[in-house]
Amino acid sequence: MSVSRVPPIVTLTTDFGLMDHYVGTMKGVILSRCPDARLVDISHEIPPFSIFSAAYSIDQAAPYFPPGTVHLIVVDPGVGTARRALCAEALGQLFVAPDNGVLSLIAGRDAKLRARELANPELWLPSPSSTFHGRDIFAPAAAALASGSAKFEDVGPVVLDTEMLADLEPTQREPGVWRARILSIDRFGNAITNLKARAFPQIVSGRFAIETGTHSVNTFCRTFGEATDGVCFAFFGSSGYVELGMNRQSAADALGVAAGDAIELRI
Amino acid sequence: MSVSRVPPIVTLTTDFGLMDHYVGTMKGVILSRCPDARLVDISHEIPPFSIFSAAYSIDQAAPYFPPGTVHLIVVDPGVGTARRALCAEALGQLFVAPDNGVLSLIAGRDAKLRARELANPELWLPSPSSTFHGRDIFAPAAAALASGSAKFEDVGPVVLDTEMLADLEPTQREPGVWRARILSIDRFGNAITNLKARAFPQIVSGRFAIETGTHSVNTFCRTFGEATDGVCFAFFGSSGYVELGMNRQSAADALGVAAGDAIELRI
Amino acid sequence: MSVSRVPPIVTLTTDFGLMDHYVGTMKGVILSRCPDARLVDISHEIPPFSIFSAAYSIDQAAPYFPPGTVHLIVVDPGVGTARRALCAEALGQLFVAPDNGVLSLIAGRDAKLRARELANPELWLPSPSSTFHGRDIFAPAAAALASGSAKFEDVGPVVLDTEMLADLEPTQREPGVWRARILSIDRFGNAITNLKARAFPQIVSGRFAIETGTHSVNTFCRTFGEATDGVCFAFFGSSGYVELGMNRQSAADALGVAAGDAIELRI
Repeated sequence: MSVSRVPPIVTLTTDFGLMDHYVGTMKGVILSRCPDARLVDISHEIPPFSIFSAAYSIDQAAPYFPPGTVHLIVVDPGVGTARRALCAEALGQLFVAPDNGVLSLIAGRDAKLRARELANPELWLPSPSSTFHGRDIFAPAAAALASGSAKFEDVGPVVLDTEMLADLEPTQREPGVWRARILSIDRFGNAITNLKARAFPQIVSGRFAIETGTHSVNTFCRTFGEATDGVCFAFFGSSGYVELGMNRQSAADALGVAAGDAIELRI
Repeated sequence: MSVSRVPPIVTLTTDFGLMDHYVGTMKGVILSRCPDARLVDISHEIPPFSIFSAAYSIDQAAPYFPPGTVHLIVVDPGVGTARRALCAEALGQLFVAPDNGVLSLIAGRDAKLRARELANPELWLPSPSSTFHGRDIFAPAAAALASGSAKFEDVGPVVLDTEMLADLEPTQREPGVWRARILSIDRFGNAITNLKARAFPQIVSGRFAIETGTHSVNTFCRTFGEATDGVCFAFFGSSGYVELGMNRQSAADALGVAAGDAIELRI
Repeated sequence: MSVSRVPPIVTLTTDFGLMDHYVGTMKGVILSRCPDARLVDISHEIPPFSIFSAAYSIDQAAPYFPPGTVHLIVVDPGVGTARRALCAEALGQLFVAPDNGVLSLIAGRDAKLRARELANPELWLPSPSSTFHGRDIFAPAAAALASGSAKFEDVGPVVLDTEMLADLEPTQREPGVWRARILSIDRFGNAITNLKARAFPQIVSGRFAIETGTHSVNTFCRTFGEATDGVCFAFFGSSGYVELGMNRQSAADALGVAAGDAIELRI
């Protein structure tokens, strides 16, 4: 371990929860192979198998980490199937994840994203299990990259057709009508849409409707303090996206929406 | 980064929960600006907006950290309003927090607490949002203080009238009667009062009543093993305060009390 | 702090939850006495007082940590009673824990486990409380061991009769019939048994019954995708044990089993 080297950062994003030993075990694997790694949890409470929520979480967090950070994302409904494991280079950082669309928003941030398949078994633990690739494949590969013992070029062959989540960008269907999506629900029940606030500044005027199929949101509030109790409203969140919220209540519950759901914006 | 320097410690106390990326994002900001910071979570499950619980948590934890530790507390119902952001120096440590009373118990521990307004935008991220000051103002300021790139004197003007929670100390109303408060509820449902155990040693005798308005607690137990099932009792907790508990049951639920509630002690 | 030394790792496994300050306070104690310790959470959501779940979690995680790691386990229903506190040496690592059986599976992994009583008050905080030994006894002792300021031999007298959980190994009652146990329940409701997959390869054939008293499991699946909805099945988990699961449902709830429960295998 060199004295002057800045210790590498490895972040972790999973749907493993915090009750079991899974996350701690992955950290043991990482520190065994990269003793000076700085480990940072993004979230381990991603709703089980929610690729949308994981894609959103890593996209929100990654830009605030320094270049060289290695992000490990293990939300992996396809573990044990033929889905590929990936390492991607984007934003001057590395992303180690299953090839299931979880890097779609990162790819939207950095058009120069390059990906390789995590196919080099020298970077894995010996005899990987079929159910815990987080421990046996992703964590040791992330550690090898963080420690510098492996380079991006060493992980496996170039992948040109990484999986992407469909319809991550809003699409205009006719004048004044966009088809959009819910990206994620936060702990307060706010529903984060994929409508970028800076692309739809006219929402501030309040002359709009966001349709969820069963409900319509027609109010804009600058702050939660402005809101009428029991009324769902749109606001510009810290995410940079239009979010749907309610004062002291879960907007997602009231609207009946979940991560990945389609919505429509009319202006 | 100097070789011999002890790495600075930054603790985090928030009501952000662990489901979302918020805490991870704040850690990215801190490590970007203070790469050798040691990050320690106190709690991110403070009940939403509970200034009492946050005040209690940081007061319990801080004395066990070394001098020079920077504590970041973001329980901030007033984010986006005119409430001030603070940096306080107490116990040989620094506390970065909104000016909403969350440092009241720390101020009770150290009468020499000095505070300054976190008003120097050079310590913030550029263009802070109005809803996520944890990321945009508090985290970068804490990192600047932890790294030594800013000193306490650099953060902004002296504040002499920091917000304090009312009635944090029990007050005697008449002989043998004290008005007191619930400071916090722990995960087991124990209700921590603001009655210091060493100030009320006579409670051990069992000749007392703690009145919550709807219930009266009249029993003292040294350990949970001594307790009768279904009976709420007082005990001296590891906090140094009189706590109200029940064996294998939530005393807070049984008594119907929450952090901040008024109670009365009669001896 | 020497420059070239690999920083010591201290892991934490408790049933304290993440709502309160308890874990953060323990980390403050550790970092005050071992400033370069790397702190890794295994779990703080061990079901309250579940020695079985804690024994299982540390047994799963420890082998993935490097030699020299200090594991701190505080699941301690007997805190404040006469139960001993222990330090054990096994797997080239140290384990600091109450003497209540929580190290039983580690002892099963390493027949050379040696234990000493954590009886040297020089390693404790002054005036330990009777309810928070995690902070006052276990954490400072772990820090002293991690920093090298105390050696294994310094903690107290040798213990030859450490507590062991009963029936941790399956026992054969008659030909084709084994009495076994549930070790732990994971967040998805999978029930991990103490039947080692490699000892019972014939389960794969599907000609077996695992009896819980009220239910019988008779199906083996290689993956969750193979399973019929609503049917509880056995599978070989990443733990190395036979586990009982259901597709998108809690097998533990359906079977009515908890950590420590007795089961029977018939082949």
